[in-house]
Amino acid sequence: MIEQLRRYVPVLDWGRSYDRKAFSNDMIAAVIVTIMLIPQSLAYALLAGLPPEAGIYASIAPIVLYAIFGTSRALAVGPVAVVSLLTASAIGQVAEQGTAGYAVAALTLAFLSGGFLVLMGVFRLGFLANFLSHPVIAGFITASGLLIATSQLKHILGVSAHGHTLPEMLGSIYAHLGDVNVITVVIGVTATAFLFWVRKNLKPTLRRLGASPLLADILTKAGPVAAVVVTTLSVWAFGLDESGVKIVGAVPQSLPPLTLPGLSPDLVGALLVPAILISVIGFVESVSVAQTLAAKKRQRIDPDQELIGLGAANLGAAFTGGYPVTGGFARSVVNFDAGAETPAAGAFTAVGLAFAAVALTPLVYYLPNATLAATIIVAVLSLVDLSILKKTWGYSRADFIAVAATIFLTLGFGVEVGVASGVAISILLHLYKTSRPHVAEVGLVPGTQHFRNIHRHVVETDPAVLTLRVDESLYFVNARFLEDLVQSRVTEGCAIRDVVLMFSAVNEVDFSALESLEAINHRLRDMGVRLHLSEVKGPVMDRLKRSHFIEEMGGRVFLSQFDAWHSLSGRPAAAE
Amino acid sequence: MIEQLRRYVPVLDWGRSYDRKAFSNDMIAAVIVTIMLIPQSLAYALLAGLPPEAGIYASIAPIVLYAIFGTSRALAVGPVAVVSLLTASAIGQVAEQGTAGYAVAALTLAFLSGGFLVLMGVFRLGFLANFLSHPVIAGFITASGLLIATSQLKHILGVSAHGHTLPEMLGSIYAHLGDVNVITVVIGVTATAFLFWVRKNLKPTLRRLGASPLLADILTKAGPVAAVVVTTLSVWAFGLDESGVKIVGAVPQSLPPLTLPGLSPDLVGALLVPAILISVIGFVESVSVAQTLAAKKRQRIDPDQELIGLGAANLGAAFTGGYPVTGGFARSVVNFDAGAETPAAGAFTAVGLAFAAVALTPLVYYLPNATLAATIIVAVLSLVDLSILKKTWGYSRADFIAVAATIFLTLGFGVEVGVASGVAISILLHLYKTSRPHVAEVGLVPGTQHFRNIHRHVVETDPAVLTLRVDESLYFVNARFLEDLVQSRVTEGCAIRDVVLMFSAVNEVDFSALESLEAINHRLRDMGVRLHLSEVKGPVMDRLKRSHFIEEMGGRVFLSQFDAWHSLSGRPAAAE
Repeated sequence: MIEQLRRYVPVLDWGRSYDRKAFSNDMIAAVIVTIMLIPQSLAYALLAGLPPEAGIYASIAPIVLYAIFGTSRALAVGPVAVVSLLTASAIGQVAEQGTAGYAVAALTLAFLSGGFLVLMGVFRLGFLANFLSHPVIAGFITASGLLIATSQLKHILGVSAHGHTLPEMLGSIYAHLGDVNVITVVIGVTATAFLFWVRKNLKPTLRRLGASPLLADILTKAGPVAAVVVTTLSVWAFGLDESGVKIVGAVPQSLPPLTLPGLSPDLVGALLVPAILISVIGFVESVSVAQTLAAKKRQRIDPDQELIGLGAANLGAAFTGGYPVTGGFARSVVNFDAGAETPAAGAFTAVGLAFAAVALTPLVYYLPNATLAATIIVAVLSLVDLSILKKTWGYSRADFIAVAATIFLTLGFGVEVGVASGVAISILLHLYKTSRPHVAEVGLVPGTQHFRNIHRHVVETDPAVLTLRVDESLYFVNARFLEDLVQSRVTEGCAIRDVVLMFSAVNEVDFSALESLEAINHRLRDMGVRLHLSEVKGPVMDRLKRSHFIEEMGGRVFLSQFDAWHSLSGRPAAAE
Repeated sequence: MIEQLRRYVPVLDWGRSYDRKAFSNDMIAAVIVTIMLIPQSLAYALLAGLPPEAGIYASIAPIVLYAIFGTSRALAVGPVAVVSLLTASAIGQVAEQGTAGYAVAALTLAFLSGGFLVLMGVFRLGFLANFLSHPVIAGFITASGLLIATSQLKHILGVSAHGHTLPEMLGSIYAHLGDVNVITVVIGVTATAFLFWVRKNLKPTLRRLGASPLLADILTKAGPVAAVVVTTLSVWAFGLDESGVKIVGAVPQSLPPLTLPGLSPDLVGALLVPAILISVIGFVESVSVAQTLAAKKRQRIDPDQELIGLGAANLGAAFTGGYPVTGGFARSVVNFDAGAETPAAGAFTAVGLAFAAVALTPLVYYLPNATLAATIIVAVLSLVDLSILKKTWGYSRADFIAVAATIFLTLGFGVEVGVASGVAISILLHLYKTSRPHVAEVGLVPGTQHFRNIHRHVVETDPAVLTLRVDESLYFVNARFLEDLVQSRVTEGCAIRDVVLMFSAVNEVDFSALESLEAINHRLRDMGVRLHLSEVKGPVMDRLKRSHFIEEMGGRVFLSQFDAWHSLSGRPAAAE
């Protein structure tokens, strides 16, 4: 019972051994992460089309809930770029941005997403996330990064534009080019350039100037804060908002409010599929990060418990004015590098952000949207990695096609179409690959008990015995292929009296394949040829024995191919 | 060039050696098949909701075209039950039965289906039909048989009813029970009972009475003709049509007319998906029959050329007043059993049916629909085979689920939903099965070079060396599973210094799996453990060498697991 509870509530496990040293390490990590998260949370809320405080609220309760239910010690949960984009795309279809309905839909999305994740976790369905192949994820993240960066151009230019695909966004920006606000452009471009410089050069420069590594690190992480402070002060001092620079404006000064997601059947119906998509993509991203970090300390994470942790975090977001969240790559790495030892670091971050929500929000009144857009652009362009195209091209054309299609369709038709097509294409390509399995005709390597492909090696064969090694599990997609192959091979070789199928690499024979084997057997019998099997694996043999196939088979099942050869070829085996 | 032509036009091949003996065998087969086809063609047209002559027209040009382009020597092409049902279901959505638009839509469906089949054949995409697993086909055919039999009940009862699913049909018949026509019921029930008796008992009875096998066979095949003659005469003699018995009525007395399918974008758009479905199902049914019959004479059929043959047959149907056709099981078996030697038998059948179309159609004016319904019911109930449920239950639960779902969904939601869900479910179940591959920890069987599962055999192991045999190809669906498994296994065993993955049954490593192997390698390195591979197959190794994985791997690639053990365990190998 206690064990059971501890499995579902990991805090009971690590909490017992929490000590002063872990506390101090966690505190330092929390300070660094909090500094990084304040501007990032505001920015991602902007990306999701929500009021800025939603980003901060989404970082408080979810972090605490993940600290209780999650299994990763370093994962930092909150709004992330890709999920924010998916949120904007999903909610944009049911409500107008800026309306109360829009914010409620965000809560509903978080609620559905959280519920779905918890259900997946309770039923231990984490493996379903594997249907997203690595190339599809890489392609999707890259394309999303490009989409997100493009979506922020309007804030840098100070124009209104809309759209969820690359052509829509670019077209809309082009149509509004006449409205460009020059001061906004100056702020946006300067902030972007500054943030790129900070990211690339500040740390080495500070180290050269003699700063301690910790200080250099904190100052680098504080780069976005500096951009925020400087641009906010500029707008305030010169009254730039009156010259058309769009600013964040009034942000309520409060702890996260208690909110209720809308649960009308229409709203739930419209958001269910996007919620599932967000859950799966968020989960995959989060689990990859968590596993990578856990491995560095020879720790383990439990993917099914991660579902529960992330689900709890999203449910938390739904009831505290947030929107869908997940474990973010950048923030988690920062947390880990800063020395976070336990999920308590996350809880301390939450306290820091709660303080910000109460005390600091009036200070961002004059913060220009262009600065937040710059923060987002710099963050997401690091996600863009087109090298996946080159890597998959070199390794496997099928994987290349999946990546290229995912990138193209995401950019051209939006995130939902992109990721759904990516999954469908990678499944179809996999089925296609296994639909024509490699089947080698093998013969005996003289002087050994080994059998090798007759086209690659000098081997002994017998015109009356045809031995085919099947290099693939047999199931419905390739069952008929084997039927055709055997039939064509046997009609060519008139001397053939025995056919041996060597099953050393056959890991499964499904019912369709069983029927194909039966068909092969009957047809061979009609031709006066016997069918034999060799090297059948235990689990496959167990299953075949449940049918009548083995009894009805004309020939025998040989434990080894050498036995089969020895018994059928009728000549003294070379190895004896 | 000639070779190329001969591949696409098989008649050039067998036509050259055609002789008198083949001619006489083909003629006998043609007579028997023609007698069987006349009532069947009328009946299937009724099932498709088309005028009776459409069934005869659909048996003339298509048979001749298949004889030219098809590769099976015994396949008989024409209207079949399942395709007729699919046709009714598809056209019913775009036109009202009995209207001119309905007949035109049938032509369009045949045209699209023919075009699709030819394209599939030219691009050699016949393997796509394999996505229909045997259990899904079996379940679908069984459910279709039940649906078809139910759909004919209205003709037996003499009521009007409609619907494309079992609940709809039964509900509609129930609602019209008050309109039952007693004379129609008497005709229908008598005809059905008679045909069942003929099918089961006539042949043995005739043989007992001393008839030759050929005569007994012809008389048995003529059973439906006898039912047609007797019931038609009864209606005519007693004027039963005036008592409400529905009859076939006037059928135009002519050779197949030249017709043009409707090709308006709306019609094509609405019928494209059903046409693809009909093509694929028809192709699968036809190819199974053709392959079974070809094997009996050690002949071969070429599935891609079959696509072209069936495609040509359907295009022929589209331009001669027919509707979608395919190779039928019953008629092909009859053709084969009657001694047909070449596709010329089909051409002679076409001549017989053309004669019927010109000369015999006035004779069926008084033929009651109930008799045709009886013909259909007796024919399709032989398709119903619920034993597939029992067989798959015994063999594999996954296959059972696919069959049961296909049957249930076809009966409950119609043929399109049934077959589409069946395909989707069987693909998902396959992916699920491969998502958690069997991975065995292996050790050395003392005194041998063989490695076996440590849980099943007494083997030597080394606490510093963990050897895992992976019994499945590695691809995106199971890549992460292996990551988790290795990580969990290594974090448990602290003494482990080397991990060997034994790849003897790994037939593929896709890009996702490559990235998982890289992740495993990095994580193991972080834990101070080396990763090795053993018994990697040639094609897999070729591919791995295209990446940097082998260079970056901490350990080595061993040709055999015994080499790996010998080199890593550091103890004298037992077999030496």
